[in-house]
Amino acid sequence: MLSEKLLNEKVLRDPIHNFVHIQDRVILDLINTTEFQRLRRVQQLGITGSVFHGAEHSRFGHSVGAYEIARRITEHFEQYYASKEANDGLWQADERLLTLSAALLHDIGHGAFSHTFEHLFNTDHEAMTRAIITGDTEINQILSQVSPDFPNKVASVIAKTYPNPQVVQLISSQLDVDRMDYLLRDAYFTGTKYGEFDIDRILRTMKPTVTGIAFDIAGMHAVEDYVVSRYQMYLQVYFHPVSRGMEVLLEHLLHRARELYLNAHDSERDFVGPLLQPLFSGESLSVADYLKLDDHVFMTYINMWRNHPDAILSDLSRRFLDRKPLKSIVIDDNTAPLLEDLEKLVAYAGYNPAYYTARNDAYDLPYDDYKPNVAKPRTQIDFLLGDGTHRELSELSPLVAAIKGQVSFDKRFFFPKDMLNIEPDELFADTFKTFRSYIHNNALTTPNPES
Amino acid sequence: MLSEKLLNEKVLRDPIHNFVHIQDRVILDLINTTEFQRLRRVQQLGITGSVFHGAEHSRFGHSVGAYEIARRITEHFEQYYASKEANDGLWQADERLLTLSAALLHDIGHGAFSHTFEHLFNTDHEAMTRAIITGDTEINQILSQVSPDFPNKVASVIAKTYPNPQVVQLISSQLDVDRMDYLLRDAYFTGTKYGEFDIDRILRTMKPTVTGIAFDIAGMHAVEDYVVSRYQMYLQVYFHPVSRGMEVLLEHLLHRARELYLNAHDSERDFVGPLLQPLFSGESLSVADYLKLDDHVFMTYINMWRNHPDAILSDLSRRFLDRKPLKSIVIDDNTAPLLEDLEKLVAYAGYNPAYYTARNDAYDLPYDDYKPNVAKPRTQIDFLLGDGTHRELSELSPLVAAIKGQVSFDKRFFFPKDMLNIEPDELFADTFKTFRSYIHNNALTTPNPES
Amino acid sequence: MLSEKLLNEKVLRDPIHNFVHIQDRVILDLINTTEFQRLRRVQQLGITGSVFHGAEHSRFGHSVGAYEIARRITEHFEQYYASKEANDGLWQADERLLTLSAALLHDIGHGAFSHTFEHLFNTDHEAMTRAIITGDTEINQILSQVSPDFPNKVASVIAKTYPNPQVVQLISSQLDVDRMDYLLRDAYFTGTKYGEFDIDRILRTMKPTVTGIAFDIAGMHAVEDYVVSRYQMYLQVYFHPVSRGMEVLLEHLLHRARELYLNAHDSERDFVGPLLQPLFSGESLSVADYLKLDDHVFMTYINMWRNHPDAILSDLSRRFLDRKPLKSIVIDDNTAPLLEDLEKLVAYAGYNPAYYTARNDAYDLPYDDYKPNVAKPRTQIDFLLGDGTHRELSELSPLVAAIKGQVSFDKRFFFPKDMLNIEPDELFADTFKTFRSYIHNNALTTPNPES
Amino acid sequence: MLSEKLLNEKVLRDPIHNFVHIQDRVILDLINTTEFQRLRRVQQLGITGSVFHGAEHSRFGHSVGAYEIARRITEHFEQYYASKEANDGLWQADERLLTLSAALLHDIGHGAFSHTFEHLFNTDHEAMTRAIITGDTEINQILSQVSPDFPNKVASVIAKTYPNPQVVQLISSQLDVDRMDYLLRDAYFTGTKYGEFDIDRILRTMKPTVTGIAFDIAGMHAVEDYVVSRYQMYLQVYFHPVSRGMEVLLEHLLHRARELYLNAHDSERDFVGPLLQPLFSGESLSVADYLKLDDHVFMTYINMWRNHPDAILSDLSRRFLDRKPLKSIVIDDNTAPLLEDLEKLVAYAGYNPAYYTARNDAYDLPYDDYKPNVAKPRTQIDFLLGDGTHRELSELSPLVAAIKGQVSFDKRFFFPKDMLNIEPDELFADTFKTFRSYIHNNALTTPNPES
Repeated sequence: MLSEKLLNEKVLRDPIHNFVHIQDRVILDLINTTEFQRLRRVQQLGITGSVFHGAEHSRFGHSVGAYEIARRITEHFEQYYASKEANDGLWQADERLLTLSAALLHDIGHGAFSHTFEHLFNTDHEAMTRAIITGDTEINQILSQVSPDFPNKVASVIAKTYPNPQVVQLISSQLDVDRMDYLLRDAYFTGTKYGEFDIDRILRTMKPTVTGIAFDIAGMHAVEDYVVSRYQMYLQVYFHPVSRGMEVLLEHLLHRARELYLNAHDSERDFVGPLLQPLFSGESLSVADYLKLDDHVFMTYINMWRNHPDAILSDLSRRFLDRKPLKSIVIDDNTAPLLEDLEKLVAYAGYNPAYYTARNDAYDLPYDDYKPNVAKPRTQIDFLLGDGTHRELSELSPLVAAIKGQVSFDKRFFFPKDMLNIEPDELFADTFKTFRSYIHNNALTTPNPES
Repeated sequence: MLSEKLLNEKVLRDPIHNFVHIQDRVILDLINTTEFQRLRRVQQLGITGSVFHGAEHSRFGHSVGAYEIARRITEHFEQYYASKEANDGLWQADERLLTLSAALLHDIGHGAFSHTFEHLFNTDHEAMTRAIITGDTEINQILSQVSPDFPNKVASVIAKTYPNPQVVQLISSQLDVDRMDYLLRDAYFTGTKYGEFDIDRILRTMKPTVTGIAFDIAGMHAVEDYVVSRYQMYLQVYFHPVSRGMEVLLEHLLHRARELYLNAHDSERDFVGPLLQPLFSGESLSVADYLKLDDHVFMTYINMWRNHPDAILSDLSRRFLDRKPLKSIVIDDNTAPLLEDLEKLVAYAGYNPAYYTARNDAYDLPYDDYKPNVAKPRTQIDFLLGDGTHRELSELSPLVAAIKGQVSFDKRFFFPKDMLNIEPDELFADTFKTFRSYIHNNALTTPNPES
Repeated sequence: MLSEKLLNEKVLRDPIHNFVHIQDRVILDLINTTEFQRLRRVQQLGITGSVFHGAEHSRFGHSVGAYEIARRITEHFEQYYASKEANDGLWQADERLLTLSAALLHDIGHGAFSHTFEHLFNTDHEAMTRAIITGDTEINQILSQVSPDFPNKVASVIAKTYPNPQVVQLISSQLDVDRMDYLLRDAYFTGTKYGEFDIDRILRTMKPTVTGIAFDIAGMHAVEDYVVSRYQMYLQVYFHPVSRGMEVLLEHLLHRARELYLNAHDSERDFVGPLLQPLFSGESLSVADYLKLDDHVFMTYINMWRNHPDAILSDLSRRFLDRKPLKSIVIDDNTAPLLEDLEKLVAYAGYNPAYYTARNDAYDLPYDDYKPNVAKPRTQIDFLLGDGTHRELSELSPLVAAIKGQVSFDKRFFFPKDMLNIEPDELFADTFKTFRSYIHNNALTTPNPES
Repeated sequence: MLSEKLLNEKVLRDPIHNFVHIQDRVILDLINTTEFQRLRRVQQLGITGSVFHGAEHSRFGHSVGAYEIARRITEHFEQYYASKEANDGLWQADERLLTLSAALLHDIGHGAFSHTFEHLFNTDHEAMTRAIITGDTEINQILSQVSPDFPNKVASVIAKTYPNPQVVQLISSQLDVDRMDYLLRDAYFTGTKYGEFDIDRILRTMKPTVTGIAFDIAGMHAVEDYVVSRYQMYLQVYFHPVSRGMEVLLEHLLHRARELYLNAHDSERDFVGPLLQPLFSGESLSVADYLKLDDHVFMTYINMWRNHPDAILSDLSRRFLDRKPLKSIVIDDNTAPLLEDLEKLVAYAGYNPAYYTARNDAYDLPYDDYKPNVAKPRTQIDFLLGDGTHRELSELSPLVAAIKGQVSFDKRFFFPKDMLNIEPDELFADTFKTFRSYIHNNALTTPNPES
């Protein structure tokens, strides 16, 4: 039985939480596994570092940070809300190690450039997370030493099927350890101030209840500030049009590489090295092969492809490594009718529109209030009154009410920046003129995010 | 002619701006006047320090801070928007010293506990500011050395009658040097995070125009964050119910002291010392007498009044100095009908309701958008597009739209906390029971601000 | 018996520690006493705010801050070093409330402008602290409810006579809760960075031992950084020559006022109001009279004395309120022989040297290592090795070794700045010339602290 | 001629300087070159991120940060110290673009894991920097557009042969833009506080002189704090024994890989891919080949080598990627005589000492004062007095005097941690026992740096 406490806690220096405190042998051993160390080789924000150059931090720091928040919460719960009997709405001390393990491992299945990657190769980082926890891995071995069913319990927390809603909501909800850590961390590393909020006050007012996690009414303004901060981070950082212009490049270049690979003779498939081949061959990836993939592998092959004989692959690879993002225009009522002509214009200028244009939506759910007649688990943020009743966040905060519900931030059409400098012949002259004037106006009227 | 530059700039260490840079002899001389040094003896947030104990900073720091922001703006304007001819919408370099002087002196007429004070003694700190600038003062002497009409020009900027709207709006508008400094400063000294915003980005996107000051569209999110931050500071700090419970005490005790003074024989008026007598006598205060008043004077007399023979005055003085604020209940549809009975109950318990109860509203205008058919100067925050058109903030930001227009945050009824412990006889038993239960529920349902 | 825990902890928002957590009824009640609330009316750094305008914070914030550090330490000690038997070098849980109370009250006897004040009026804030704790005060009543001997125990901790050296050293030693809080707090409010150090790491490595408090070797560099930070704060902030030029003014003006008072007829003693008279009369001050004195009282009388008929008192009062410090020159081998002539020159220029000149030393003990053959309690900072041996800080750190022992930072001669502009007749022309040239050179060669 | 200013400056959001301001077309174009973008793929602190997980930032951010400091300095110099004639000790405005370009490009030749790399492959990043600036690169093209000799001028600044010592010292000296940026940046990303200092005050007191750069005496304490901060960063971060335990692993594994490569038949050389082969073949690297190398390439091959048939290479690769550093013991008078036996013991335990042990020194020159009789350029930090004389830092600061001159921080012997768990037979039992006891004592007596 491995659930022992360390004689002396170990600490990791962390810029967000100052110290991450490791008090259990299981947690220390999990961090020392090969699978967990891989997270050092996967950047948290992928391509966003090309716009905010400070944001080069990996998922390793975020994972131990989410763990540290979970540790503080469970310590606070044990001190103030220790359960005396089952299902009384209070905190069961024996959920502690499960909560900490799930917090630490919630991103263990993330791969390089996850969003692009999953879309293209049809993988799913959450499924992979569960596979790593329950499969033939060092992580599974460590977890199994706690108890034979412990790996499955951890996986069920991440899958949101674990029966105790308190544990599930601490790991995945609108105000969970994952989101709290990534907002603070991404704000710190990008150097923007939008993501900051008062985590100390939020943690102090957090409470276990029979239906999960709620907050004391005294924490309302701190929670409101957190939701607004998250909304601003999406607008300003996560959906930055230049990042999306890089992401589109990456997607096109990986797509092109795979096409070339699938259409090539065996003898010409060397340009995709052994680490990537299982992915490109189209068969389903084993956990072991998946774990070999990290940012470095992709970046190294893209580096090699700079000199690939295929003109499109080499050009896209160079643009990607040398940070020449596709430019974009917001798709609105004025520009939408123009896009078909624009694609023709791109083709006329010598670029294959399939690889040099894209349409890309940015949307997020800044806050999801409760819909009483929709049959799904409660997701709203609730405040607890002393008489046992609850009130939901958007009822209390006009700011949150203003941004609740699904929001599409913007849709953009991407194209090569070089297009702006062509001199089209008569046939395309009008389209080009309209195009340039729309780009100009678009730039003038769109609130331009950070730099 | 005194508008010379210093050979070596002087700096003041400042926790908000790191350094305040003093580059002109006029500015240095203004800071060294007796009237400006008095600002060290007037706290910026008055009674708020009794709730947020860090907030003990004076108007001196805020005044040099507002000056420093003005200095940065005029330097930026001179570098990027130097005017070539009059009224071209660009910045006239010769407005610099006027802008800096007005920024430095905008609060020079503030007295101790301004809000309470003005209400009670019928004074007006803005009128006093102009009187200090144009009257027989050291400040007037310094300003007159720039040019004979310079004091009047500075006063007209503060009165908003100066013809150049750029200068006026830098000093007084919804996004002026005063508000920017006080939000950052009050957030820093209270230790709350709500008041923080990205001033560097706001200053970078600020532009002079023919109608005043506008912002580049690229600054929209930073400005939005500023408006939201200000809203949160009002809710969490400036309108804190405990501060208001102290303010109400102060108002009642000064009122009582003046009444005693006015009704007393000359020989019994000693309890009001020579510095306060001009104020209490009810005649209009001279500038010279006004300038002798500061926080220390009031606090010293309240200290003496602890032992005054009048039971009400001594009791209120003790409560004030020993921080025993009146308690409060939100006035809403449920509690409003109860207030008349409550006052009777307070009287029954032995407290004179005129001195031990109060009703107090908290309201602010978080953002005032443009009302086209209202004949008054434009006050909205405008964003400038490259084609010369403007868009107003609340059109662009759903967050600001949600809080624009006049908002009454809450109305409260104040009463002695000791009331909760009385044991009323039969006649009042029912009223008391209802009262206690409302207080209880009120506390449970009102989002409780900080601490 | 009052040593009960609060049902819900209360928090005070604090800029240094974010929150001060109040968990015991005794602590809450102590804060609410009239004696403790008085600390809001005594500035922590006295006259230093006239140089660093952010430093206007009171002893109230520092006192609750020192308490909060003590709270964190005792919580940590209870978790990791709980004693099983008496005198085993581990932490006795029942010392907690004593430690917290002593930390909270360690400065309760401080008066306005303590250093100047004590020197002039022959008072002693440490004796007064003990008198307040053991005398007829609200504080004494609260403490007595814990147990009849509890007030004396608290007083003995502050007097360093309490038998448990752990408790004594937490409150008074070279690395105690007082110093840790004031360094962080003064650095924050002045806006300098010199006072910052890694308190989290220091607290983590602090350990109880049989002889008091020691540190794990892993904390050595954090402790070294603390000692160096403290040294830099003394050089840069606490011993700033302009502050000292203001302090000297204050001392002279209070001295002059007392002289006038003592030499005056009863009928002419009104200029010293009732709150100050017990102090000026020269009899020993009662606790009750002492507690009426605060910054406001002194500042109000100095304000009145601006118009006192005595030319020296009114002039010094104006200089003090209008911030016209005496200027200074470092006393070194070159300047020392000159001082006698300088005093004559000052007299020649029309200033009474007794009130317009001063000599002032600044010295501190940045680090006091152990002197084995000096019979006094151990004061050095010790590091604990796993084999039970200790090593002393200056053996391990070359930086600390360089500044250990008594250091006189500088000695200065103060004089009116106006002296520099006189035009002396022939008799004094040479002295004046030499004087001006030394002032010039002195300014050029002395590392000038902040601003 | 390309030295034009941008119509609108561009900004990069930076966590250290808030914004990096780009005002010249040359600077913008240099940043957009393929060579400069490569710096995003080289971590600033190499292997240090395995100890301080926040420190994953690249040389890109550091390079634009060093540029930003240079931009602030030249702006300040132009405003306050504009030269009127040649060699007058003041600042020549036309050195601006040269200074900015050299600051931006000072690290352009850095490769992956520079220190390990250079030692092993006999490369020199400073020579490579000059080769990139003067060779056939995009950077050279941009620089040449300023003037044909501009690339050589930039290279000569970096080589310290440029005639104007002001420019040279801004780029390379004991207090240059490189060191100032990396200290602040590394402190920020590691999350330690040791590296912080008051850059604003340092920049304000920096002055051009005939012999280079000096500081006003008023900046002495800020400069002292910078030197002490740098010393503490070396002790606590840069020389962390765990980083060094990882570095030693990396060195051994690259050494092993090259040996295997050189001894292999052509047909078995595939395990070293095309990007690494020019390096491994031992011929001198072309600039073009050098520029293809980045962190990703090394990490990808090490990833592949996990499964290499050579047991040593695969084992070292796994240890490196899975963060299993070699453990270490300080070499002192007690342990030095033991090392020979220790190596035998390592061999006995089955590890080849050539690949599993190492001796490693950490040394730095915290401050190099002036040695008058040594014929080399002045390197000391000088303070300027108003009479034209200088004083050197260590004369003024006892703290700096204590750490000046060459310092060897420590020497360590590295070995596999698994050694501690072996059970040696009789022959080695004594050595093993002594060894374990020394390791134990060593750990107990060495001030353990961060985490």
